[in-house]
Amino acid sequence: MGIITLTTDFGVESPYVAAMKGVIFSLNPAAVVVDLSHAIPPQNIRQAAIVLEEVAPYYPAGSIHVVVVDPGVGTDRALVYARIGEQHYLAPDNGVLSRLVWLGWVPEEVRRLENPRFWRHPVSRTFHGRDILAPSAAYLSLGVSPAELGPPAQLNVLLDWPEVRILPDRIEGVVEEIDSFGNLLTNIRAEALAGRPTDRRAVVVCGIYETYGIYSAYAQQPEDSFIALISSSGRLELALVGSHAARRLGISVGTPVTVAWE
Amino acid sequence: MGIITLTTDFGVESPYVAAMKGVIFSLNPAAVVVDLSHAIPPQNIRQAAIVLEEVAPYYPAGSIHVVVVDPGVGTDRALVYARIGEQHYLAPDNGVLSRLVWLGWVPEEVRRLENPRFWRHPVSRTFHGRDILAPSAAYLSLGVSPAELGPPAQLNVLLDWPEVRILPDRIEGVVEEIDSFGNLLTNIRAEALAGRPTDRRAVVVCGIYETYGIYSAYAQQPEDSFIALISSSGRLELALVGSHAARRLGISVGTPVTVAWE
Amino acid sequence: MGIITLTTDFGVESPYVAAMKGVIFSLNPAAVVVDLSHAIPPQNIRQAAIVLEEVAPYYPAGSIHVVVVDPGVGTDRALVYARIGEQHYLAPDNGVLSRLVWLGWVPEEVRRLENPRFWRHPVSRTFHGRDILAPSAAYLSLGVSPAELGPPAQLNVLLDWPEVRILPDRIEGVVEEIDSFGNLLTNIRAEALAGRPTDRRAVVVCGIYETYGIYSAYAQQPEDSFIALISSSGRLELALVGSHAARRLGISVGTPVTVAWE
Repeated sequence: MGIITLTTDFGVESPYVAAMKGVIFSLNPAAVVVDLSHAIPPQNIRQAAIVLEEVAPYYPAGSIHVVVVDPGVGTDRALVYARIGEQHYLAPDNGVLSRLVWLGWVPEEVRRLENPRFWRHPVSRTFHGRDILAPSAAYLSLGVSPAELGPPAQLNVLLDWPEVRILPDRIEGVVEEIDSFGNLLTNIRAEALAGRPTDRRAVVVCGIYETYGIYSAYAQQPEDSFIALISSSGRLELALVGSHAARRLGISVGTPVTVAWE
Repeated sequence: MGIITLTTDFGVESPYVAAMKGVIFSLNPAAVVVDLSHAIPPQNIRQAAIVLEEVAPYYPAGSIHVVVVDPGVGTDRALVYARIGEQHYLAPDNGVLSRLVWLGWVPEEVRRLENPRFWRHPVSRTFHGRDILAPSAAYLSLGVSPAELGPPAQLNVLLDWPEVRILPDRIEGVVEEIDSFGNLLTNIRAEALAGRPTDRRAVVVCGIYETYGIYSAYAQQPEDSFIALISSSGRLELALVGSHAARRLGISVGTPVTVAWE
Repeated sequence: MGIITLTTDFGVESPYVAAMKGVIFSLNPAAVVVDLSHAIPPQNIRQAAIVLEEVAPYYPAGSIHVVVVDPGVGTDRALVYARIGEQHYLAPDNGVLSRLVWLGWVPEEVRRLENPRFWRHPVSRTFHGRDILAPSAAYLSLGVSPAELGPPAQLNVLLDWPEVRILPDRIEGVVEEIDSFGNLLTNIRAEALAGRPTDRRAVVVCGIYETYGIYSAYAQQPEDSFIALISSSGRLELALVGSHAARRLGISVGTPVTVAWE
């Protein structure tokens, strides 16, 4: 197996990430370790789930994604291995992998990490990322079979996300994520917008703001225009051209978004 | 070819960088990818140009520098390959490479990235960094010739930077960059200061502040002294010893700096 | 030799780190370079020393740890190579390596970096991290012997850290570090707590706050409880479950912590 990615809520300034990398390199000096994100807000399982959904698919088949957003560390929540599509995941069974399931993926194999042979000892009660997940990832990257990590299991914690409502005259969704530019990413997929009347302009309402038409590039409208467009991950996005929409307009995750047609 | 570096305005907390790395590793699992900077202020082409000038020369000949500071993404601005000196660049033709030209480098080869064979499909209209620049870099690192990426071109957007005025009795420049310690980097090169009277002390004025002499190390003066010295990139620098000069003194990029001699 | 780690006070947004990596890759294109931390507060030698102590031991024997927290750069402070345990360090002799000595490690070999053959030229007076430490690390990783870097030396700057007082009825220490979650890490080791009466509950006082018992996981108590537990590095830790204790309670490094028994 191949690349190991790390997704944590440790913050980009934390040295704990480097401790995990040290554990991995100690077991597999030839490992390739990539930071997926360390800026998940603390304990924000939902945000981690969205970031994983967005970024993991760009990785080569066989990549190993380690997720340490783990408010229940040290309790009896399970740690699991899951193969979903062509990617491998090592994570707490706390819902962080459940967005992929909610989107329709069926995990091909799930194992509960119970074999201490693949752990670092002594195992801290507060940092299983370093002592269980990181060494498990290193062993997988060395060719250890997932079956050796522990007995078959399933994902027990399955979270729900707001559903998009597709109605005859409009589509209703919400702002699901705010990116580092302050752009508002909704849960409305580009496919949901296809097949709508092309002779009528879309009207997109987000909170108390409204915009007309769906553009394909930020620079199609002047600075500070509030526009709708299709994001790089194929979702309806709202942006303030050249500016930080979330901060300037006071919009946060969960704000309702409606698309209708004139 | 060798190492791939990434320079973006995504912010150090953004998972979009990891998406680009995933695309690169999917094409070239043996790629070596290094973060040059992800802290370019959003859409700040000039700052990216300065960072590139400062850091890219330290990389081995044949390195591939990918620059995604791209406010015009999705418009008809060109994406280009350029060989400048012994380094390869992949960037929008928006001026981000033009500081190297302004400094006297003549690009040896410029190509417009028009060959979709080396792109990731479908190509998003808002993230050409992931879908065009990243895969192009991966293919170059695998040995694809720049000539295959597209037809010969030239850099069309050439920005100017403030010129230093060298007068008989003084040198006039500006603060061009503020580093992470708050030190003020000017556009006055060390060479411009050479050959001046050694029996007279330099007087450096920056905005409303003044300092005497040019030191060679921060610790030569006590804490909180406002001093001039030569920066690690060979430019006149102003610093508040042990403190953040820009914030403490309220000095920003563009502030005039004058050097005279007593 | 193996992996090269970098610890600096440049900040996670600084492009200077990438300059050091470029210098390393220019000498050893096969180097494996890992960011240990770039978020050491500027010139904070003590914080760097603590982070090194916590993270370096997780790295494989033979790793090379480069430390650039160097307020005395350009003065006559020495730069040194030190082998401590199975790890190699390259750092200023300003106390940053002295915590390991204070903890009882005896450096096996110390060299003063005086051989300009292993430096990058011209050597800047303000960035020895790039021009002396980075190339020295690259040469070590290529198999150059530490003895070639310069003459035998010793660590001259040895800092002290607050001692823990172990009394018959209580243990007195301080908050030594605040992590990125806001948890308070003390200098009281788990071993110091062992062998105390198990039939009496511990009473932990930190500043004006008090808590009872020592837990093993955050999630054993409800949100916002102020609890004591053993940290992942084996020290007494105080935390506000699911929240940022340091910010919420106004506790900073140096705050006294006492453990007694009911």
